[in-house]
Amino acid sequence: MTRLTSDVLDAAWKVFDGARRVMVAMHQNPDGDALGSAIALTLGLRALGKDVHLVCPQPTPEIYDFLRPQELIESAVPRETPELAVLVDCDRPERTGALSEAVAQAPYSVVLDHHPPTSEFGTARVTDEDCAATAEVVYSLLRHRAVPVSYEMAEALLTALVTDTGGFRYPNTRPRTLEIAADLMRQGPSTADIAQKVYDTRSLAGLKLMSRALDSIQLSPNGHVAWARLSLGDYEVTGAKPEDTEGFVNMVHGLKGVDVAVILREEAPGSVRVSFRSRGGAPVGRAAEALGGGGHELAAACVLQGTLDEAEQRVLEELKKWTEF
Amino acid sequence: MTRLTSDVLDAAWKVFDGARRVMVAMHQNPDGDALGSAIALTLGLRALGKDVHLVCPQPTPEIYDFLRPQELIESAVPRETPELAVLVDCDRPERTGALSEAVAQAPYSVVLDHHPPTSEFGTARVTDEDCAATAEVVYSLLRHRAVPVSYEMAEALLTALVTDTGGFRYPNTRPRTLEIAADLMRQGPSTADIAQKVYDTRSLAGLKLMSRALDSIQLSPNGHVAWARLSLGDYEVTGAKPEDTEGFVNMVHGLKGVDVAVILREEAPGSVRVSFRSRGGAPVGRAAEALGGGGHELAAACVLQGTLDEAEQRVLEELKKWTEF
Repeated sequence: MTRLTSDVLDAAWKVFDGARRVMVAMHQNPDGDALGSAIALTLGLRALGKDVHLVCPQPTPEIYDFLRPQELIESAVPRETPELAVLVDCDRPERTGALSEAVAQAPYSVVLDHHPPTSEFGTARVTDEDCAATAEVVYSLLRHRAVPVSYEMAEALLTALVTDTGGFRYPNTRPRTLEIAADLMRQGPSTADIAQKVYDTRSLAGLKLMSRALDSIQLSPNGHVAWARLSLGDYEVTGAKPEDTEGFVNMVHGLKGVDVAVILREEAPGSVRVSFRSRGGAPVGRAAEALGGGGHELAAACVLQGTLDEAEQRVLEELKKWTEF
Repeated sequence: MTRLTSDVLDAAWKVFDGARRVMVAMHQNPDGDALGSAIALTLGLRALGKDVHLVCPQPTPEIYDFLRPQELIESAVPRETPELAVLVDCDRPERTGALSEAVAQAPYSVVLDHHPPTSEFGTARVTDEDCAATAEVVYSLLRHRAVPVSYEMAEALLTALVTDTGGFRYPNTRPRTLEIAADLMRQGPSTADIAQKVYDTRSLAGLKLMSRALDSIQLSPNGHVAWARLSLGDYEVTGAKPEDTEGFVNMVHGLKGVDVAVILREEAPGSVRVSFRSRGGAPVGRAAEALGGGGHELAAACVLQGTLDEAEQRVLEELKKWTEF
């Protein structure tokens, strides 16, 4: 891991300064941090006169439409190899899907990330696991070179901070995160606006589905494990879509005294996706791994074959190995 | 309204400095801001050697138990008139209920508040409507005199900020709010810890009740108004209590495209409490007033006599006068 020292930031700027044609790429299935960081960086480098192509071959989640991805992001994989490729919110070309080859073949590359390192890729790497979001890395880069932060750039970075910290509620939120958010707010955008845009976006079908998920919640005898389940029938009756379950597991986690929260969702006949959250009492990442999935220690997922009942039984049996029940 | 200028803070400190026996009082039905601000101020004044009694004749909400109100707060109305009374998060003695007389009779008084002024009470007044919380006022007072902010004081003030801004999601959140939160975090407490303690506290019965509320949601034809209803039967079946509905109206407000959200709750046979939220398209305070209630422009409530059906009909008829439906 590097830190955001003056030397590290200087080294990255040296690579940026040497290139005119830049491709900015983010990981597949981009989230608010990948999108917001990539957009702010793109606008910042353009302000310095560079020819920057922000490329994402996939559609971006609708809730981020206010960041105008349609105008800023190209979906076509570039034919020419870029002079410089920038990897945002990940640290290996493979994470970018269809852009992998273009990223890997660029003569120069810069990695901007806040995840634990998984490679040594990059002419320059600016990564810091202490940052709540890659947006903190991009912010530090821009401020280091005194690149003016416009309203659009501030809004993109603040969106990244708000979403990657769950509205400053996750333990990754540190004083510096709030100070950066304060500075970004001084450019015009507000946390209230952004939180409304990204959090107050449920459909009626989504709330009806949430009603069914909440109604299904069960608690383990000691009250430390809670789980909810949704069948294909629940989606049919409510008209909700799989993406409408975003955040449901956090609702289950909101139960007083609960350490581990689980949502089991039937994705297709005989296939059940399971999402886990833990406050630290149980390493749900290890449990998910044992079930053929993976993730972080405190947030993980797996897909099980079989009925909802079968999946529920397997999940509970596995959890009993990792935590008191 | 005053501002937190050096002169205003000096004037307040002059009154504090002149007294040794101080009573700190907050408004009835104290919330996180009243409690947190009063606790931090009490600890700060004690650190300066003063004999401070923090008094609240009512029980405080359970979710704030981690601030140790049982140890810090006295419930008995003081027999002796205090030398100095401090009013926290309100600006008139009457708002303190059973303490009104003691506050009004104290020879000196200081008002610390962030609401629009409703009186001129107070030997000194430090009030600023631009502050997201009274905690910002107390923080400024403490920092102005360089009173050391302990972990306990920081936790109390950060709790006040988190709760009064809805976790930095309400429009009252400003850059300065985040900067103060950052400074308080540097004393040890974290927004993540506090958010978990005050927000992740639903009971299973409460989530089952939420399930019923969500299932009942209806949308107006143009999708701008959404309402949910809970009957006495819903409370009976789930075993939930009236206080378990805290925040439900915000869930309804989270529907995409909705301006006005309403919850109708049967409180007793023939009595229905109605809560309103608006994003600004409709002045729900005026609508609630017309129905015999009151509140702010964007958040208000009223109580209607009759059945749930009758209350629903009256509310919708009234709302049609104030907003497109």
